[in-house]
Amino acid sequence: MSQKLKIALAEGDGIGPEIMGACLGIFEAAGVMDHVEFVPAEMGERVFAAGNSMGISEDGMRIVEETGLVYKGPMGTPVGKGGKSINVTLRKMYGAFANVRHFQTLPNVETVYSKAGVPIDVVIVRENIEDTYGGIEHRLTADVVECKRLISAPGCDQVHHEAFQTARRLGITKVHCGHKANIMKMSDGLFLERFKAIAEEYPEIEIGDVIIDALCMNLVLKPQAYDMVVLPNLQGDIVSDLAAGLVGGLGFAPSANIGHNVSIFEAVHGTAPDIAGKGIANPTSLLLSGILMLRHVGLLAQANTIENALMHTLEQGVHTGDFGANSGKPAVGTREYGAAIAESLGKKPSTHVVRPTEGVSSAIEHSRPERPETHKLMRTFTGSKSELVGCDIYLDTTLAPKALGEQLGGVCEGTPFTLTMMSNRGTQVWPSGSVYTDIVDYYRCRFELRDMGQAAGMDQGALIGLLGRIAEKFAVTDFQPLKYYDGKPGYSLAQGQ
Amino acid sequence: MSQKLKIALAEGDGIGPEIMGACLGIFEAAGVMDHVEFVPAEMGERVFAAGNSMGISEDGMRIVEETGLVYKGPMGTPVGKGGKSINVTLRKMYGAFANVRHFQTLPNVETVYSKAGVPIDVVIVRENIEDTYGGIEHRLTADVVECKRLISAPGCDQVHHEAFQTARRLGITKVHCGHKANIMKMSDGLFLERFKAIAEEYPEIEIGDVIIDALCMNLVLKPQAYDMVVLPNLQGDIVSDLAAGLVGGLGFAPSANIGHNVSIFEAVHGTAPDIAGKGIANPTSLLLSGILMLRHVGLLAQANTIENALMHTLEQGVHTGDFGANSGKPAVGTREYGAAIAESLGKKPSTHVVRPTEGVSSAIEHSRPERPETHKLMRTFTGSKSELVGCDIYLDTTLAPKALGEQLGGVCEGTPFTLTMMSNRGTQVWPSGSVYTDIVDYYRCRFELRDMGQAAGMDQGALIGLLGRIAEKFAVTDFQPLKYYDGKPGYSLAQGQ
Repeated sequence: MSQKLKIALAEGDGIGPEIMGACLGIFEAAGVMDHVEFVPAEMGERVFAAGNSMGISEDGMRIVEETGLVYKGPMGTPVGKGGKSINVTLRKMYGAFANVRHFQTLPNVETVYSKAGVPIDVVIVRENIEDTYGGIEHRLTADVVECKRLISAPGCDQVHHEAFQTARRLGITKVHCGHKANIMKMSDGLFLERFKAIAEEYPEIEIGDVIIDALCMNLVLKPQAYDMVVLPNLQGDIVSDLAAGLVGGLGFAPSANIGHNVSIFEAVHGTAPDIAGKGIANPTSLLLSGILMLRHVGLLAQANTIENALMHTLEQGVHTGDFGANSGKPAVGTREYGAAIAESLGKKPSTHVVRPTEGVSSAIEHSRPERPETHKLMRTFTGSKSELVGCDIYLDTTLAPKALGEQLGGVCEGTPFTLTMMSNRGTQVWPSGSVYTDIVDYYRCRFELRDMGQAAGMDQGALIGLLGRIAEKFAVTDFQPLKYYDGKPGYSLAQGQ
Repeated sequence: MSQKLKIALAEGDGIGPEIMGACLGIFEAAGVMDHVEFVPAEMGERVFAAGNSMGISEDGMRIVEETGLVYKGPMGTPVGKGGKSINVTLRKMYGAFANVRHFQTLPNVETVYSKAGVPIDVVIVRENIEDTYGGIEHRLTADVVECKRLISAPGCDQVHHEAFQTARRLGITKVHCGHKANIMKMSDGLFLERFKAIAEEYPEIEIGDVIIDALCMNLVLKPQAYDMVVLPNLQGDIVSDLAAGLVGGLGFAPSANIGHNVSIFEAVHGTAPDIAGKGIANPTSLLLSGILMLRHVGLLAQANTIENALMHTLEQGVHTGDFGANSGKPAVGTREYGAAIAESLGKKPSTHVVRPTEGVSSAIEHSRPERPETHKLMRTFTGSKSELVGCDIYLDTTLAPKALGEQLGGVCEGTPFTLTMMSNRGTQVWPSGSVYTDIVDYYRCRFELRDMGQAAGMDQGALIGLLGRIAEKFAVTDFQPLKYYDGKPGYSLAQGQ
């Protein structure tokens, strides 16, 4: 047999070791250890307690980098001690760009939806790096804070590819893109445009798109309407926890963070210190995350065998103390729960969909790029051409629109630029607008070339010259050149413009 | 009797006139017309069709401005003809800053939650102007788009006041703030900070806060946990439609857009052209919006009498064709449905909460400011002091971090500034970072004073001088001064910094 695939193992804190023990026992019984070697990687409470604010030891970090795969129990972040979430650190540093979570109704896990006989089976794929999660925030004026929401074309392409590839692997035939492109026309517009572009490489998969608010209403009203939804970061964060609610909460919902270099499969619930060590914790979420991991590395047969056994076991009314009270059977401990699943390997559920265990891969199919020499530069629109046509200059001022417009008009004299518009919180207040529009101490002032024919000869120096003149009189909070890209404006108009 | 309160009336398109007729009939029977005069205001399809891209006539606009109150049936926005949503236009132009929606289980409206016996009664208050809804978007590089997310302190104060005042009026004793301040620490941090500050003026109301993803999971798992939640714009948009799903969809969910100058009470469902004119449409959503309107202007007794009658009527199994099939009774038309509610005025529901009709206001209590001479400037932190300490300059470049860092270091020579950090999509890539962090063609480069003691003498000219030097070599996409406010940094650190 070929060399085993190494996976970094972090048991987690609190109930982590118990539930990880149960999961590894099931893996062992299912023959997973014939293909996989788990390598302990030190991270979590003990590392934080030793004064490491990353929460992961140097040796742990090396193992994560060497294996590129992490199976991880629940871990807490010490509050108020400067400690950072290990999840976020690993995701950002190693570029785990897609969060993939598969939510399905589990037998004897009672929820509002199970009571109503509404089955849930939906995969949510969330972009994991961009959006407002870059954390780029500035207090622009005394009263106004900005958070930059960034969407990049190659970032979109990465997550959309991952969604379609996951759909293909799971046999999902329709993928929706969730978005708010009716409001965030350029940024979510880009996310949606790249979804449609990438979809062309997966012609066997049908696509659709849905506005985020309608999606959330529909998921509550008729969750069966979606098989897979791919979303930007914040919207995906919200929808994936909503979907966890549909199946009973975080204890029944797996999570995978997929990257080219490092992928992390984890339980996202808490460490439950109140019941740690009592042998009564529920390992279902961690087991489901493990199933996602086995599928990710090519062990589909083993993953499906374990999922079938889990569903069969749940159908028998086997449950830990936190659920399944209506099954008519007493609760069992973590160890017994795991053992019951291990004993059910090879059995199939009768009420839940049966996953195929034959005709699917049962050996490692996993590769990862070599450790890069430097950062990988991701590009999408390499051929696009831009030209400067003006700039938006943002000011910290309490002047009324009319007075501000007059003063800025004066500053423009003798320059190639003219003041074309001012907005306050996105609504135009100059040259026209409504006196009913309340304003704050922060304006966007748009300067454009008097003669657009001059764009060809325009350079940044002229814009910065204008900025300098304005900065002599006003407090500048922000400056953005306005560009045309391939003949189309690369900026939005104001509401009312 | 005193002069009647005038309210602008727009029946709406499609099923609008029918459902509005039913609602006005109920108002008439409940004595509302003793206090209110409805004044038709022309807006909607006919106005769009006449070539007015606002969808509201000049005369209609005048009536809206004069009355400051709008009761509005469903209206469509013509797609692809440059027409703008009337809702959005009115909200933005007149500063209707709070969207208030009351979601409750209605008798015989079958949903997953009603089947499971889980009652819903929650008010969602959404900030209606700010966040990413300012629509300020720029394509910064070939591959990267930015949308500015703006949160202002006075904008937060407005919506929080409205939430607490609504809670007081409705007898709600606990209000939650929903947010994502663990990620958007400064912007949602401000929203949460102002929530707590404004709450001090309403000491009888208990407060709590909840992270948006947990909120959405909890609303699905145990919606009874919240009485009222106030949220930023996008999160509030999502949560309010999720909550509409809990009670059966948009046909059973009211909507009020509250402003100091103009408030709009409307049905947010579609115009249902396929059934328009057939007399079978369901007026429940528009009636519920009308109930919110009556409460808003002080007619609590009338509003509560109508709500009690609606609930009593639903309990009797009266329903239109789109719901209530399990009541065992045949569907009735719009007119009959309205008549049944009018006939039930004075009756009380037996399964639904009974709203008090005595000891509450039954006369107009409503005032609005005079038409302003100019825009109202809203301020919160008038006393704060700032000082310049550097700037973030954002570049469009495909250089690797090391090479870019070296070149920028050279540009800083002889200036008071030094390059302290570079990040790519929010993650630090210079001076330290991981080669596993994939990058795009857009960098944030942070320049800070070598000697912070120089901050007192610093002016914008020095920063713009630095910008000019950098712009000689690089394409600048964005420039933001870094400031301390009252001794604390007004900017976030990079992930990994």
